[in-house]
Amino acid sequence: MSTNNRPGTVYLVGAGPGDPGLLTLRAAELLRSAEVLLYDALASDAIVALARPGCERIFVGKRGGNHAMPQDEIEALAIRLAREGKNVVRLKGGDPFVFGRGGEEAQALRAAGIPFEIVPGISSAIAAPAYAGIPVTHRDHNTAFTVATGHEDPTKGYTSLDFAKLGNPAQTLVFLMAMGNLRGIVERLLHNGMP
Amino acid sequence: MSTNNRPGTVYLVGAGPGDPGLLTLRAAELLRSAEVLLYDALASDAIVALARPGCERIFVGKRGGNHAMPQDEIEALAIRLAREGKNVVRLKGGDPFVFGRGGEEAQALRAAGIPFEIVPGISSAIAAPAYAGIPVTHRDHNTAFTVATGHEDPTKGYTSLDFAKLGNPAQTLVFLMAMGNLRGIVERLLHNGMP
Repeated sequence: MSTNNRPGTVYLVGAGPGDPGLLTLRAAELLRSAEVLLYDALASDAIVALARPGCERIFVGKRGGNHAMPQDEIEALAIRLAREGKNVVRLKGGDPFVFGRGGEEAQALRAAGIPFEIVPGISSAIAAPAYAGIPVTHRDHNTAFTVATGHEDPTKGYTSLDFAKLGNPAQTLVFLMAMGNLRGIVERLLHNGMP
Repeated sequence: MSTNNRPGTVYLVGAGPGDPGLLTLRAAELLRSAEVLLYDALASDAIVALARPGCERIFVGKRGGNHAMPQDEIEALAIRLAREGKNVVRLKGGDPFVFGRGGEEAQALRAAGIPFEIVPGISSAIAAPAYAGIPVTHRDHNTAFTVATGHEDPTKGYTSLDFAKLGNPAQTLVFLMAMGNLRGIVERLLHNGMP
């Protein structure tokens, strides 16, 4: 049953790499007023703790391939909650549009007629190298960088990454979620001319 | 003359794409306590206004190729202020390590023995497409994205961008600061197989 006729808004919010100091002001404001929080494994405990005290917190993440909730159920849940008139913060590690499936969630919300807002977050693709002292660009060394998944959709059964094009010593190359496939990635890059 | 023996800290802070809501909590905290603020043209007025009321504000940016202050003078100024014991916020549009010359400033500070901290910011490379409804990655469409400068160091006299490798229809490609060279960039991409 709807409690009123106007749906709530779903906020697709980037939580950044984990340090609460790297949360945006807009993300913190939305957390402080959220009625429901749907959060990932990548959203750190310290950030989840910033949510409004009475806020309903629902873990929808995955850890090491074990989905707490399939993607289509997450989307259906956000839509159902919004139709109950609730404002929902969908908090994602990093940036919602950098391998965060935020695009899919935005499409589902649009199709369902639910108002939504995207709040970009600091991507670990840039911040993690920065914390390690590595600028992804440096005027003396490179003029581009590429961010690629190290963990492709396992149902595809092939790689859509073009390693001949990725193997470019003039670019910084960042792989996300790559630990499980690290050896294969390194071998392909070496084979394609990376030093 | 040094006012004390301990240098201040220089904070290389990303201001994000301009919306104060996309400033990080850490950046806002540092602005509220800054003694000196060195800021770029890309740091918006609304964000500069968040600096501590008594903070000394120094514009060091450039607009359309007219440098208010050359890069080496900016670095020397930050070092001099820190040696006077002042805490300096060096605020840059976007992220300091994404074509922001933050790497060069960090090197200069390191060489001078000045303590510094990097505070990543939201890069317009990801946020601007997001605000336009374009996720830089989408599981159904691509598994990588590349961010490249559209405005290379004019003293180099050649392009270090490898357009044969950039011309990859399976990737999202973002050019920053590209308006002046847009026609040439598009022609090279078409020539290298981009639809």
